Amino acid sequence: MADARRYHKLPDPFAMKRGGLLHGAHVAYETWGRLNANADNAILILTGLSPSAHAASSEDDPSPGWWEAMLGPGKPIDTRRWHVICVNALGSDKGSTGPASIDPATGEPYRLGFPELTLEDVANAAHEVVKGLGIERLACLIGCSMGGMAALGYMLQHPGCVRAHISVDTAPQAQPFAIAIRSLQREAIRLDRNWNEGRYTDETYPERGMSIARKLGVITYRSAMEWNGRFARIRLDPEERPGDPFGFEFEVESYLQAHARRFIRHFDPNCYLYLSRASDWFDIAEYGEGSVLEGLRRICVEQALVIGVSTDILFPLEQQEQIAEGLQAAGARVQFVALDSPQGHDAFLVDIEHYGPAIGGFLDMLHDGL
Amino acid sequence: MADARRYHKLPDPFAMKRGGLLHGAHVAYETWGRLNANADNAILILTGLSPSAHAASSEDDPSPGWWEAMLGPGKPIDTRRWHVICVNALGSDKGSTGPASIDPATGEPYRLGFPELTLEDVANAAHEVVKGLGIERLACLIGCSMGGMAALGYMLQHPGCVRAHISVDTAPQAQPFAIAIRSLQREAIRLDRNWNEGRYTDETYPERGMSIARKLGVITYRSAMEWNGRFARIRLDPEERPGDPFGFEFEVESYLQAHARRFIRHFDPNCYLYLSRASDWFDIAEYGEGSVLEGLRRICVEQALVIGVSTDILFPLEQQEQIAEGLQAAGARVQFVALDSPQGHDAFLVDIEHYGPAIGGFLDMLHDGL
Repeated sequence: MADARRYHKLPDPFAMKRGGLLHGAHVAYETWGRLNANADNAILILTGLSPSAHAASSEDDPSPGWWEAMLGPGKPIDTRRWHVICVNALGSDKGSTGPASIDPATGEPYRLGFPELTLEDVANAAHEVVKGLGIERLACLIGCSMGGMAALGYMLQHPGCVRAHISVDTAPQAQPFAIAIRSLQREAIRLDRNWNEGRYTDETYPERGMSIARKLGVITYRSAMEWNGRFARIRLDPEERPGDPFGFEFEVESYLQAHARRFIRHFDPNCYLYLSRASDWFDIAEYGEGSVLEGLRRICVEQALVIGVSTDILFPLEQQEQIAEGLQAAGARVQFVALDSPQGHDAFLVDIEHYGPAIGGFLDMLHDGL
Repeated sequence: MADARRYHKLPDPFAMKRGGLLHGAHVAYETWGRLNANADNAILILTGLSPSAHAASSEDDPSPGWWEAMLGPGKPIDTRRWHVICVNALGSDKGSTGPASIDPATGEPYRLGFPELTLEDVANAAHEVVKGLGIERLACLIGCSMGGMAALGYMLQHPGCVRAHISVDTAPQAQPFAIAIRSLQREAIRLDRNWNEGRYTDETYPERGMSIARKLGVITYRSAMEWNGRFARIRLDPEERPGDPFGFEFEVESYLQAHARRFIRHFDPNCYLYLSRASDWFDIAEYGEGSVLEGLRRICVEQALVIGVSTDILFPLEQQEQIAEGLQAAGARVQFVALDSPQGHDAFLVDIEHYGPAIGGFLDMLHDGL
């Protein structure tokens, strides 16, 4: 299979925020477009919990990426103009070092021996990639969902390294509803006997726990409003229904099942646990003596676009508004875009009709200022 | 322990909507206040999925009931004035016949041999109690949550038997978001190996599945807004934290755990599955040739109070509005009360400050018309 993935070695040791050290670690990334001579046209994208670095197709890997409609020549993030980098999060299993990687000290997978992971570590690892590419200052840092929190951590830890910021469907700290959902996802995995304190194999794999975790994810990534229009009370064909008692009967149930099937074996359960907990831990108030707004005020960027949707139950619009207010108070020129896309948290992945012009317009304006 | 519970034998056989027959079945109920000579001061309460018939304390059972603040002498549902009946749902395990009861044909618990249960069966069983008490027409039928759907079924199947109706935090049909949540709760129980197709014992009991199901319930019964104020990001005391990796760290996590512990062994898993699926199946549009409004238009009551909250994600306010519109179109005088209680779906249990006057005021008006 074609692969556009490249790897960047992290400093050895790589020091983690909560005290751990990684040896021989690396992160996977992909790039699109060309870095210009001034090295001032670079955009870094930090992803949500599960996507790889493959945000869009390229010559090296023509398969569609997770943000295919947003990124490419002539698209809102126009790769004829920008040099775009997307990094697979440290701790993930899509090429970067994480709990599923081999621990050089033991020759075995880290599993739960992986050090405690924070989104600041995810940000710092991505920053190493950017530095390695010879970029001192990003033209724009884009963070989506979990990556939006990591992006805030990036800007706080590397002041002066980001000119403009696009914050997409994210939050300045995890609130209790999101923590509760993620805690329950982790519990479903941990309660699966096959999880076995992280020591599962391909044969004894925590499929049941991963299925529940993923379905709960999908339920909270979308919205009730969208599903009323999409599924209503449509039943499955009787022949498609499983024979077991209490088996699936409604289309929404088989939709969730299809999502779970695609995910279960394609994301490492321990990596999921680490990234999920890192999301709970993120709190920009730690940088502002307990105040979210104070934390945000310590971020220094020239301009920002903050975008979110009213149907997002995981990262509610009030939290995007907080980010916009805080960055404005910090002196940035801020555009705040509140959309009513029916798709919920996942809107940034599917409602390109509205996210595209907002992000493309902001980047156009930024480009004119280069 | 004092017990105010009484039992009403259902007709033998009791015919279920989807074709099954129950033999020797009964439902448990409690009453408060006295039936007057005209037998026109009776109120029936149909409960949510898990409560028993013990809605409030009484001389026979002074322990507080699940709606203690709402029901009693001088309270909004004033038992000095009204004869109040609360029925434990058919299919539940709080005294009524259900999957945990002994099947007289085998001498063993029904388990999954219990016939398919619908909310119409729950309503019909409650109607038998009312008839058995010599009441031809209820002064008021109150339905909360799942009981609100059962109440709609009651009025459709027993026209002329209800004078006024109070609809509390409920829906005229299950929407896909609620179906998805309940489906996932059922899946968590069914995936627990101890569930064993319904043949668990006290020693091998599906605790893990029930824990996940209950926590997911609590998450969807409350609201993000309430939890922001209540839990924020408060951590547990380090000594209260379990030692296991990925154990609980935030207060919201131990709150969910405490809720789950109180529930797991106090509600029969098979009963839970049956009542949960019955809720998914309920659809008033079946009575209106596919239209919710047409279904509601076939309900004949003189007056109705429809009450719900904007923070309810399980039974959204739009669905209460539909009920109000439909009953109005059917010729009832309807009060629609939309509250902003932060507590979500469970507001009717805790925000007595607002639910009390609405329900009490409606009943006062009804009493003046007796």
